[in-house]
Amino acid sequence: MDTYTVADHLVDRLAELGVDRVFGVPGDYSLGLLDHVVHHPSVRWTGTTNELNAGYAADGYARLRGMGALCTTFGVGELSAINAIAGSFAEHVPVVHVVGAPALVKQAQHRPVHHTLGDGEFGHFAAMHADITCARATLTAANAIAEIDRMLAAVRDERLPGYLVVPADVAEAPAERSTAPLPPPVAGTDPEALAGFTDAARRLLDGAADQGEIGVLAGLLVHRFGAGGALGDVLATGVPHAVTPWAKSLVDESAPGFAGTYSGAAGSTETTRRVVEDAAALILAGVQFTDLNSGLFTQRITRSRTIEVGARSASVGSAVFAPIDLADAIAALAPLVAARPAATPVAAPPVDPGGPAPDGDPLSQAVLWQEVADQLRAGDIVLADQGTSFYGMAPHPIPAGITFVGQPLWASIGYTLPALIGACTAAPGRRGVLLVGDGAAQMTATELSTVLRLDLSVVVLVVDNDGYTIERAIHGPDEPYNDIVRWDWTALPAAFGRADATAIRVETVGELRAALAGAAGFTLIQAVVPRDDVPDLLATLTRVLGGAQK
Amino acid sequence: MDTYTVADHLVDRLAELGVDRVFGVPGDYSLGLLDHVVHHPSVRWTGTTNELNAGYAADGYARLRGMGALCTTFGVGELSAINAIAGSFAEHVPVVHVVGAPALVKQAQHRPVHHTLGDGEFGHFAAMHADITCARATLTAANAIAEIDRMLAAVRDERLPGYLVVPADVAEAPAERSTAPLPPPVAGTDPEALAGFTDAARRLLDGAADQGEIGVLAGLLVHRFGAGGALGDVLATGVPHAVTPWAKSLVDESAPGFAGTYSGAAGSTETTRRVVEDAAALILAGVQFTDLNSGLFTQRITRSRTIEVGARSASVGSAVFAPIDLADAIAALAPLVAARPAATPVAAPPVDPGGPAPDGDPLSQAVLWQEVADQLRAGDIVLADQGTSFYGMAPHPIPAGITFVGQPLWASIGYTLPALIGACTAAPGRRGVLLVGDGAAQMTATELSTVLRLDLSVVVLVVDNDGYTIERAIHGPDEPYNDIVRWDWTALPAAFGRADATAIRVETVGELRAALAGAAGFTLIQAVVPRDDVPDLLATLTRVLGGAQK
Repeated sequence: MDTYTVADHLVDRLAELGVDRVFGVPGDYSLGLLDHVVHHPSVRWTGTTNELNAGYAADGYARLRGMGALCTTFGVGELSAINAIAGSFAEHVPVVHVVGAPALVKQAQHRPVHHTLGDGEFGHFAAMHADITCARATLTAANAIAEIDRMLAAVRDERLPGYLVVPADVAEAPAERSTAPLPPPVAGTDPEALAGFTDAARRLLDGAADQGEIGVLAGLLVHRFGAGGALGDVLATGVPHAVTPWAKSLVDESAPGFAGTYSGAAGSTETTRRVVEDAAALILAGVQFTDLNSGLFTQRITRSRTIEVGARSASVGSAVFAPIDLADAIAALAPLVAARPAATPVAAPPVDPGGPAPDGDPLSQAVLWQEVADQLRAGDIVLADQGTSFYGMAPHPIPAGITFVGQPLWASIGYTLPALIGACTAAPGRRGVLLVGDGAAQMTATELSTVLRLDLSVVVLVVDNDGYTIERAIHGPDEPYNDIVRWDWTALPAAFGRADATAIRVETVGELRAALAGAAGFTLIQAVVPRDDVPDLLATLTRVLGGAQK
Repeated sequence: MDTYTVADHLVDRLAELGVDRVFGVPGDYSLGLLDHVVHHPSVRWTGTTNELNAGYAADGYARLRGMGALCTTFGVGELSAINAIAGSFAEHVPVVHVVGAPALVKQAQHRPVHHTLGDGEFGHFAAMHADITCARATLTAANAIAEIDRMLAAVRDERLPGYLVVPADVAEAPAERSTAPLPPPVAGTDPEALAGFTDAARRLLDGAADQGEIGVLAGLLVHRFGAGGALGDVLATGVPHAVTPWAKSLVDESAPGFAGTYSGAAGSTETTRRVVEDAAALILAGVQFTDLNSGLFTQRITRSRTIEVGARSASVGSAVFAPIDLADAIAALAPLVAARPAATPVAAPPVDPGGPAPDGDPLSQAVLWQEVADQLRAGDIVLADQGTSFYGMAPHPIPAGITFVGQPLWASIGYTLPALIGACTAAPGRRGVLLVGDGAAQMTATELSTVLRLDLSVVVLVVDNDGYTIERAIHGPDEPYNDIVRWDWTALPAAFGRADATAIRVETVGELRAALAGAAGFTLIQAVVPRDDVPDLLATLTRVLGGAQK
């Protein structure tokens, strides 16, 4: 380990970009490379039980930290993780996928070596990553430093995954230690475009002055492009605002002006809809309307009175201004919004007239998510899997200082369990709260073993409802394809070598309350709810979806 | 379900091709299609815990039955399974991957719906299957019947996987019930090419008449192209013969003439090497030399005295004859071999001078595989994962009537556990014997739940050696990336709802013997062996591999 190598440069650059942990599974083509990971002074290796889960973990890490990384082996390893990478692409998550490959001197012989298709060709799997990464590189000793830097800068700046093939001999090739950090992002904003946008936005807002309140709807890209601070300046004016489900936890839900989560005609309250749909002028900040993020495209937005801020461009009505970075456009809007008269306070959401459920009541979806929401605290990282958990939790107000992680576009069930590992290791000291259905959790359950090994402080709530409930709600409620095996989740920690870990099965409201209140360190809660019970928001969505698939 | 649909045609064709079980995970884009699977009179649905495992199960099924099928949902589901499909391609396994997709009427709107990249495009994932399938089709109502038939015929005839995208509305589109079966394979053999090959082969064999014995080395493609019967006619002459590790169980290892498993300079006995390397004339029947199948390309084959039979062509020395189907070429050789004088019997392998290990001895790799081999019986299906299990078992003689399943080219660890489900459901009444290391088994362990649900009669032997032992042998024996969490495998059945299932931990030879002898129905054996102990064959290979990666 005395010679500085290409592998060292790669790991140093990752560390420079804030990555202090690489996830993955070893393989013989990557072992030499991994030596440089495990011996790095500030980067740690975290093995997972399989590669898909490593990809999910790296994604969860990147959502908290701004960048994540995994390392797998050629063919078998990288393809096992490819669903996670595609998900990172769809959900704008900057993940670096490093693949250990056969040495170039071996590739040059074009022989049928293991983990290949047997045809002597080594480019098949890189080609499969073309549509799901923003940058790809296959290293040689000659291009390695430049290509690593190019790929990493693209991932950092585009907020999308990158793919890097490192042949075993290239990993060990000598390299010069870089004395300069990675060049900073090139500012994307054209001052003239920004001035034009600002003028047009001012005119639209001025024209709306006597038409009523303006409103803001904030979306995921504000988080991804690091524009939360700029958005905060806009919202500090008290302007009425909402978020999409995808952007939940982007804003402080207890702040003045917060009007709820907007998802079109499905599940939005009257107040939320009015703030968004009836605004005299609406600012759409980093919003992408996808089916499950918009009540199946039932958003009602009037283009002519909308200011829309996207990743690289901004528009006012039908006039588009580009290139403008998202944060710059939002920052330009803050003084315009501040110059308007104070907004009327948004009406507080109505209090549930029923009051809290009695301890002895059996659990239901209706009370489950309220009870979970009640016990959340600032600093928690809440991961809600894309079944009843996401739709159950999304409408519930959560305290400030919480990070909420879901995956409503890619919607790969089982994602959140390994993502929990990434999120918690990216933010040490914060508690993880995983909300996941039994069918989803079975997909990736082996990773509970890693959660236990790392001694993460987490609440794992498995919703035990005997099958793919979200699918039952859409189609085939009694068909065998929606059945799963009923597990005893409380017995899993012992199988994973941790018989001492807390794992509790709860059937009543009181049992759930006690389990949540007593949670410290690792706590697994198997919460039994009726089989066909679904949250209201999901019921609405699935009624439409069931018809829409035909 | 009264109208005959495209989905019905697809499932009927699968049934016609011998597929009576479809594996997979449901998704909202595939639910309508699955109705036609679960209600089919002769096809059953078998849900797995995740899609990769469904792919592995379909592969295991296809190896026994000649064709297998899985059904997943768009994007998230299909990409989770793609490693398995690539493995089926590398290993010549005919698997049909059916993907439920958004309805064409929805695709035409190009909206960002869930399980897509959010760009309104629906062709990304089909493109990712181009290099790993022999035929692909994206159905429309107009092309559905023709495209299904074309894809299925290609899978049947090429013995490679196929990929079929079924939009939800196309699945439910009315179709005419086919009155004719799928057209039979077109004979690939050109009679003139076959005559030329036969003449040339006769001359080579005649020329070798006074040069010594001839020999046969048989490989995987004989099995894949259904030429076992033709090969049997050749071997019935008593001609000395060996198989590659990939083709283990292709021939009766107790028959006269059997000379062992040939893997070049690594692990072949002197007798095996002589039969192959010193043959006056050698018949290579369906052999593909890959690294792990040839002692890292240490095979010694003299082209000028070799008759080689491939999938679609055959050669004698440097003269190639095509097109000739593999079975036809082998059939043509049988009378030529029979016309030769009787072969000298092959010397029986030396008996281990040590004799059986005492009951009280701790388990080791050296005794483990011998004990397992001793307790195998005709009809067993043995699946050996590509770690110490495969290399430990491959050199051991096994009784006739056993099917041996490994994956030495693709070598995706964890494959065998879900493949066990496919193999056992493809061959009801036969016992499954799974041999898998702990690191590999952790990758896919959730599928034990399905093994238990289906009440399969299997022995699951988990080699508990505390990590990725095959990787330790190659590089980094004490590095943390080769560590895994030590599980209590005997506690898993209870977690999977089957506390009644037999699960035993063994540390001595006697305990292993008792567990194997007592195995009935489901039996899980956690066999503890020393951490760095590896089978001889693997030790040889990894010494070379460790250097070769640089």
